Amino acid sequence: MYSEQNVDIIPEKWYNIVPDLPEPLPPPRDHDPENSSIDLLNRILPKEVLRQEFTSSRYEQIPQEVIEQYMQIGRPTPLIRAKNLEKFLKFNGKIFFKYEGATVTGSHKINTALPQAYYAANEGVQEVVTETGAGQWGTATALAATLNGIKSTVFMVKVSYEQKPLRKKIMNLYGAQVYASPSNMTDFGKKILAKDPDHPGTLGIAISEAVQYSLDHDMRYLLGSVENCVITHQTVIGQETVKQLETIGEKADTLIGCVGGGSNFSGFTFPFIKTDAEMIATAASEVPKFSRGKYAYDMIDTAGILPELKMFSLGADFVPKSIYAGGLRYHGAAPALSLLIRKGRIKTDEVGESQSLEAFKIFSKTQGIVPAPESSHAIATAINYCRNPANQGKTVVINVSGHGLLDLSFVRD
Amino acid sequence: MYSEQNVDIIPEKWYNIVPDLPEPLPPPRDHDPENSSIDLLNRILPKEVLRQEFTSSRYEQIPQEVIEQYMQIGRPTPLIRAKNLEKFLKFNGKIFFKYEGATVTGSHKINTALPQAYYAANEGVQEVVTETGAGQWGTATALAATLNGIKSTVFMVKVSYEQKPLRKKIMNLYGAQVYASPSNMTDFGKKILAKDPDHPGTLGIAISEAVQYSLDHDMRYLLGSVENCVITHQTVIGQETVKQLETIGEKADTLIGCVGGGSNFSGFTFPFIKTDAEMIATAASEVPKFSRGKYAYDMIDTAGILPELKMFSLGADFVPKSIYAGGLRYHGAAPALSLLIRKGRIKTDEVGESQSLEAFKIFSKTQGIVPAPESSHAIATAINYCRNPANQGKTVVINVSGHGLLDLSFVRD
Repeated sequence: MYSEQNVDIIPEKWYNIVPDLPEPLPPPRDHDPENSSIDLLNRILPKEVLRQEFTSSRYEQIPQEVIEQYMQIGRPTPLIRAKNLEKFLKFNGKIFFKYEGATVTGSHKINTALPQAYYAANEGVQEVVTETGAGQWGTATALAATLNGIKSTVFMVKVSYEQKPLRKKIMNLYGAQVYASPSNMTDFGKKILAKDPDHPGTLGIAISEAVQYSLDHDMRYLLGSVENCVITHQTVIGQETVKQLETIGEKADTLIGCVGGGSNFSGFTFPFIKTDAEMIATAASEVPKFSRGKYAYDMIDTAGILPELKMFSLGADFVPKSIYAGGLRYHGAAPALSLLIRKGRIKTDEVGESQSLEAFKIFSKTQGIVPAPESSHAIATAINYCRNPANQGKTVVINVSGHGLLDLSFVRD
Repeated sequence: MYSEQNVDIIPEKWYNIVPDLPEPLPPPRDHDPENSSIDLLNRILPKEVLRQEFTSSRYEQIPQEVIEQYMQIGRPTPLIRAKNLEKFLKFNGKIFFKYEGATVTGSHKINTALPQAYYAANEGVQEVVTETGAGQWGTATALAATLNGIKSTVFMVKVSYEQKPLRKKIMNLYGAQVYASPSNMTDFGKKILAKDPDHPGTLGIAISEAVQYSLDHDMRYLLGSVENCVITHQTVIGQETVKQLETIGEKADTLIGCVGGGSNFSGFTFPFIKTDAEMIATAASEVPKFSRGKYAYDMIDTAGILPELKMFSLGADFVPKSIYAGGLRYHGAAPALSLLIRKGRIKTDEVGESQSLEAFKIFSKTQGIVPAPESSHAIATAINYCRNPANQGKTVVINVSGHGLLDLSFVRD
């Protein structure tokens, strides 16, 4: 979005961490060997996306068209010194935040939606389909499709569809067709509605509907998180941060972000993997995937349509408490991130809803930016970190993955 | 908000157009010579604000503390080339927009709220008070007060208070006390409620309540638009735009903005006054102050508490149709702007709600940014302008004064 003098902050390549991991990344595997879900990917993903998912080369050239699109949607996003928060915390180090909420869709999700939609359009696909829980991913997909001249369909978890009418509106504005899931648009949805017409929906069901719908209509399916290529795309966040810190002569001691599926955190931190920066991944206490999850192969979606991945997981049938930070309710975490946590390179934290709400309020009042409830978890970790006398003097960088302007009902009256 | 390499885009001085006007600016005058409203200003405005209101020096130094605050709230705001909109319009010139929606409060209003709150705090004032219609000004005042360590009270027109609960929420988040006006907090409000307990409120009533409340409690009152010092503060917009265009080697042929009281438009265009750039001020057709208003002394507020100004006005008792762009419903326009329109230096346009909604949709879908309904009027003028073959090849700069994320109900389902 920023003035043209900043364009050189946007990287020319995405960074794929796979060759730099301390051991080989465990590959995806079929849930049911009789019925290959890996083959299924061939039918539902754009070819180039599939190739990137399985590559082990360190860099992928970002197409010039995608760089242009990155500029139009607000890249590079700003790196801001949170001086008011420092003052509030009486912290004598420095707090910076990378503000992904400055993209036009209000979160980091657009970083991967754009290339995926671009590749789909480039391969002659007319329409893409995906699911969305809280709405951020659906919003990003809708805009990415429009900017690449193709159509989009979004299956939105019914309870969110009803609670967040503004989200549906913005997706419609961007030209997407939005269905509440479970819906009558797929056999899977119809079956569920037959049993329970008032079923509130889950992300697992919405994924199954989106995949089914893309197969039925020969569309392509866009991936919102967890998968490796998504994380590769999200490294624009961390690579920009590296350059921005260099430009102002600063060095990060600590990087903090929140984890749902892991895409914003991984995209933010992986470009720093060869530095000695401390990295802390914050999950929601209500979704304690790090403290109580198992590191093992598990299903990505509830129905087991997509291939299994080795990751920290609470089990694909884990039903989280209804917390406001919908983006953190996912049961697993991206394989590369899980591996690095397992190996001790990345530390973890878990923050509860009331503490994240407190961080949300402090950040709003000191910096004026209303952060996404998800990002508020990372801010909570950072606040605790900076209040610890042992961390005085450090340079802390938080990834604020999105704004919370459409989530103001997080605060009760 | 932007990376520290951009800081030099923020000007060091505000620009006051008064000495550069083609003839002297007609001064404020008392509505009732028996009861001086000019004296009243001495009691309700911070001293420094009052001095700036009546100065005729060309520049005012921006205090270093305010520059710091400008950086924290998102200045410099980006100047963005609207390539997708150009493509959509098949326009072979260039369209840029200055995006004031990128400030943390989502509009340009914070540009003057900050210095006013700063001066108040500096003079020992503990609390400031103001009114708000659509909510943008109240939001800016609330944050400005918080950042300067003082309290704030906002009288919000009751119909908006009820229609826009998110606006109240964000003001509360920033620490403001918000009352629906007419309220029981002032004698004036009580009188109105006694006659009609369901009175929906008007901006005029809310101003009267805010002024009364500031007098009753020895607080200071903050000015949101129209007054000259407000416009002087808003010249950060245009001065940044001048530098940003220089940086990328561009020259503006045409500047377009929307006009409520005139502060965003004047702040954007006045720093270009000595160039040959064409300037077009867009009002709402439903508030046809330029085509049907009179250029004459008129009251600023409905009750006539504040001094009269010479301006284009539909009359202080003008009751506009209920249009969604609440910020454009004001009956008058800032004196310096009115004078320049009168003299022919600045052209005008008037755009109706349906056309602005169309522009809102086009801009959302092409650029991904949901503009404020007010700003959508300027975009509508720009779209018409760029569709006119006579204007092919020109470089057009639009001021997008705010985002519309809290105004999505502008679009019906």
